[in-house]
Amino acid sequence: MRALTLITFLGALCRSLTENISYTSSPNIIIMLMDDMGWGDLGVFGQPSKETPNLDAMAAEGMLLPNFYTGSPLCSPSRAALLTGRLPIRNGFYTTNAHARNAYTPQEIVGGISKDEILLPQMLKTKGYVSKIVGKWHLGHRPQYLPLKNGFDEWFGSPNCHFGPYNNSIRPNMPVYNNSEMLGRYYEEFKIDRKTGESNLTQIYLMEGLDFIFRQTKAQQPFFLYWAPDATHSPVYASKRFLGKSQRGRYGDAVMELDYSIGQILNSLRILGIDSNTFVFFTSDNGAALMSGPNESGSNGPFLCGKETTFEGGMREPAIAWWPGHIKEGSVTFQLANVMDLFTTSLVLAGISPPDDRTLDGLDLTPVLFNRPHTLKNRPIFYYRGNELMAVRLGQYKAHYWTWSNSWAELKKGINFCPGQEVPNVTTHTQKEHTLQPIIFHLGRDPGEKFPLSVLTKEYQDALSRISAVVKEHKETLVPGMPQLNMCDMAVMNWAPAGCEKLGKCLKPPTSEPWKCNWPH
Amino acid sequence: MRALTLITFLGALCRSLTENISYTSSPNIIIMLMDDMGWGDLGVFGQPSKETPNLDAMAAEGMLLPNFYTGSPLCSPSRAALLTGRLPIRNGFYTTNAHARNAYTPQEIVGGISKDEILLPQMLKTKGYVSKIVGKWHLGHRPQYLPLKNGFDEWFGSPNCHFGPYNNSIRPNMPVYNNSEMLGRYYEEFKIDRKTGESNLTQIYLMEGLDFIFRQTKAQQPFFLYWAPDATHSPVYASKRFLGKSQRGRYGDAVMELDYSIGQILNSLRILGIDSNTFVFFTSDNGAALMSGPNESGSNGPFLCGKETTFEGGMREPAIAWWPGHIKEGSVTFQLANVMDLFTTSLVLAGISPPDDRTLDGLDLTPVLFNRPHTLKNRPIFYYRGNELMAVRLGQYKAHYWTWSNSWAELKKGINFCPGQEVPNVTTHTQKEHTLQPIIFHLGRDPGEKFPLSVLTKEYQDALSRISAVVKEHKETLVPGMPQLNMCDMAVMNWAPAGCEKLGKCLKPPTSEPWKCNWPH
Repeated sequence: MRALTLITFLGALCRSLTENISYTSSPNIIIMLMDDMGWGDLGVFGQPSKETPNLDAMAAEGMLLPNFYTGSPLCSPSRAALLTGRLPIRNGFYTTNAHARNAYTPQEIVGGISKDEILLPQMLKTKGYVSKIVGKWHLGHRPQYLPLKNGFDEWFGSPNCHFGPYNNSIRPNMPVYNNSEMLGRYYEEFKIDRKTGESNLTQIYLMEGLDFIFRQTKAQQPFFLYWAPDATHSPVYASKRFLGKSQRGRYGDAVMELDYSIGQILNSLRILGIDSNTFVFFTSDNGAALMSGPNESGSNGPFLCGKETTFEGGMREPAIAWWPGHIKEGSVTFQLANVMDLFTTSLVLAGISPPDDRTLDGLDLTPVLFNRPHTLKNRPIFYYRGNELMAVRLGQYKAHYWTWSNSWAELKKGINFCPGQEVPNVTTHTQKEHTLQPIIFHLGRDPGEKFPLSVLTKEYQDALSRISAVVKEHKETLVPGMPQLNMCDMAVMNWAPAGCEKLGKCLKPPTSEPWKCNWPH
Repeated sequence: MRALTLITFLGALCRSLTENISYTSSPNIIIMLMDDMGWGDLGVFGQPSKETPNLDAMAAEGMLLPNFYTGSPLCSPSRAALLTGRLPIRNGFYTTNAHARNAYTPQEIVGGISKDEILLPQMLKTKGYVSKIVGKWHLGHRPQYLPLKNGFDEWFGSPNCHFGPYNNSIRPNMPVYNNSEMLGRYYEEFKIDRKTGESNLTQIYLMEGLDFIFRQTKAQQPFFLYWAPDATHSPVYASKRFLGKSQRGRYGDAVMELDYSIGQILNSLRILGIDSNTFVFFTSDNGAALMSGPNESGSNGPFLCGKETTFEGGMREPAIAWWPGHIKEGSVTFQLANVMDLFTTSLVLAGISPPDDRTLDGLDLTPVLFNRPHTLKNRPIFYYRGNELMAVRLGQYKAHYWTWSNSWAELKKGINFCPGQEVPNVTTHTQKEHTLQPIIFHLGRDPGEKFPLSVLTKEYQDALSRISAVVKEHKETLVPGMPQLNMCDMAVMNWAPAGCEKLGKCLKPPTSEPWKCNWPH
């Protein structure tokens, strides 16, 4: 069903519905998480093509957060951080196989989200929330790691990225699940034309989201929708009606379709009369993947480098909070915030006490969102790459303890995390340690991290002294989680996901031969 | 008088005035030209600090032009282009002393705007407009080149930049004129504290602008105000109340004060009831001066390099058109446009036929501004550096025929036009010719000019073929103006500007010893 048709349908029903609905105090929660979308991809964040009218309107109706961060410059750990409210170094989404390497959950990964972690939907369930994830999961694909085993009531989407394989010869194509059973596979039942970039997946994800919103509204049950489409991850895709429409090429087509879909979702909330009872947050999992540029990459605006790195381009994200009647329209907060705050904030909104048996990295942002007096100003942002704390931001100052873009070997293969950018001693192609004399930038004057403060200045010494105290405390109290992303095995791939028998789509796994995963970045 | 006091005063008078005012069809015209402000300095263009609420509101009430260009990457020629509607290569604001060098009007320059050029205020006078320039002139400082000899009725400001000298030992301090007589000098009567950055010059320029608007409104005469403050040119300055207020340091303080002042001007138009009869255009003279970064430089957002260069960062400018009731609020145009269009457009708005005895580079933008059917889409943008056509944009394609950032010699001195940016074969430190095989970028997919199209592609060949035709026609029909910026002489400096006798501030000029100016960039 096309979005407009469904919305018309919803509109026809809403009058009779809204009269009868009596909500609890628990607002609905929608987190929209984009894939590899960069800070600079939105008109409101300075994209010259200005092709995101719905997101720009969302910002005009809500709050913009220019200092919002992810929990990791890579997809799996950043998504685990969002759903657990904890840094990947705590929740186990890292590796000890290699120093400062970004690890994630490819098909051959043995691990996934630990059963010791508490996920946002699990907590929300205690207050009667029904939760659905639409789109990419990426917290592990073996049965015990899947969404319905981890608090979600519904799921439509895939456990992994759609970036391949593109046939089942060596590795199985990614399965697409409807709840606990596979519905088909990418490139088979769920087409993505690699040549034209055509796929109607975003439309399907939109329909799945709208359908859930409608059903929950009708059932008068509070809901949590985690809407995680992946059209902007390479290979980027868009529906026929959006292909060729953007000034920016195919990546822009994908952005336009996501922007359209977000407009449809917000509009459906209005039509259903639940906009003033629904908190919506838009952001992305990590910075734009500049190594896929220019055709398949987004923009990190004025920031340095992108995905995979701990420069601002890798971890500063576009972010908009929206809740008509609760969040002041057209507002901006400069509060340093991150995806882990969404965990804590969502719980507070739902009237649930966050778990007190573990360290949480997320803070309650409600005082900021609702413009109440607050004292969050001095919270640090930690930039990890795998098991190494690469950098820390405190206020406007960011200290780099380690720098690394990518290796010389990768660069020679044409993979460049910082194309066209080169800051001496900063965008290094070896893992370079600066712990004795961190490189410090003032991100207000120098958001692009191009002009290190001189170590001889009082400003440097003052900033270092304040950041050092924070780092010391952080390291002294840190209890790293058990690393989940160390082991790989071809046998654990998506050969025979639940439901494959009914579809006749089970593949035969090879013999189990585990190895220590190799992480190049 | 403080701005608020004056505005209150205006407000008290406006009721009685507006009832009696009957306008001609000629709208008032205000062009606000910033100095070295970059595309990325406005919140609406993605500045992370978002400290320009008045400009952002101006955009929300008017039209944003993300593809707006200056006529040169340097101050004097770009200002000459704006006021003549002609490229500097035609109006003489270039040099033949050295290939592809940016030339401007320092104190020792002998030349200035040619008497053969027709300036915007001269044309507007034919329809009864009264014109005032507030701020920086920069079209030559010898008596015959000054504003009141070139069509302006009033002037408050300086013929040159305030970047020095800072005493009268070798060169005189810059004079500040009130109309045809000097009122004092920078760093003497008109203080700029080089240590603290404190100066009330922007407030003075605001008052001068408001006073002119008020007088013209009272006199019921259409006016042209060319408001050209220079607070964002290094050494940047701000009034005490703005110093230290920005997240971005002193440069940001200057931006905040300009933003405040622009808000005051627009508000005064509303209070006087002439907002629907006043066309206002905001832009800048060239890209942010990255070589002054980070403390004294703005941001060019996602674009490559800055001032002095023909990359996008050097010539793409922030631009907003505002005219309540005439220009649709919150609109955006992707039309390629430039400062020379302001000449032609202003004439059309005033009901004046542009001069037909010379080539004009400016086009009439009114169909775009008023959203009428139009066919300007395919106009090219020419990027000159001095006497050399470095690059041409047509549609989304930009072909570089020559590349150059700055020389190795300058780079070694620490002057860097592209700090932190390095695109092989593009940000070259020699003047590199590519005329046989231009470097072509698709600015939609790659606004940062980082990924040259492969010459083997059909896309490259098609783009080249279209651009080549435009270049051929341009070069064949080009009649370069007499170069005005070749000769220098210490004797022509501002030793004894008109009015210096009354003030006792005349200095003794040295003997005339002209030489061919040396242009490093």
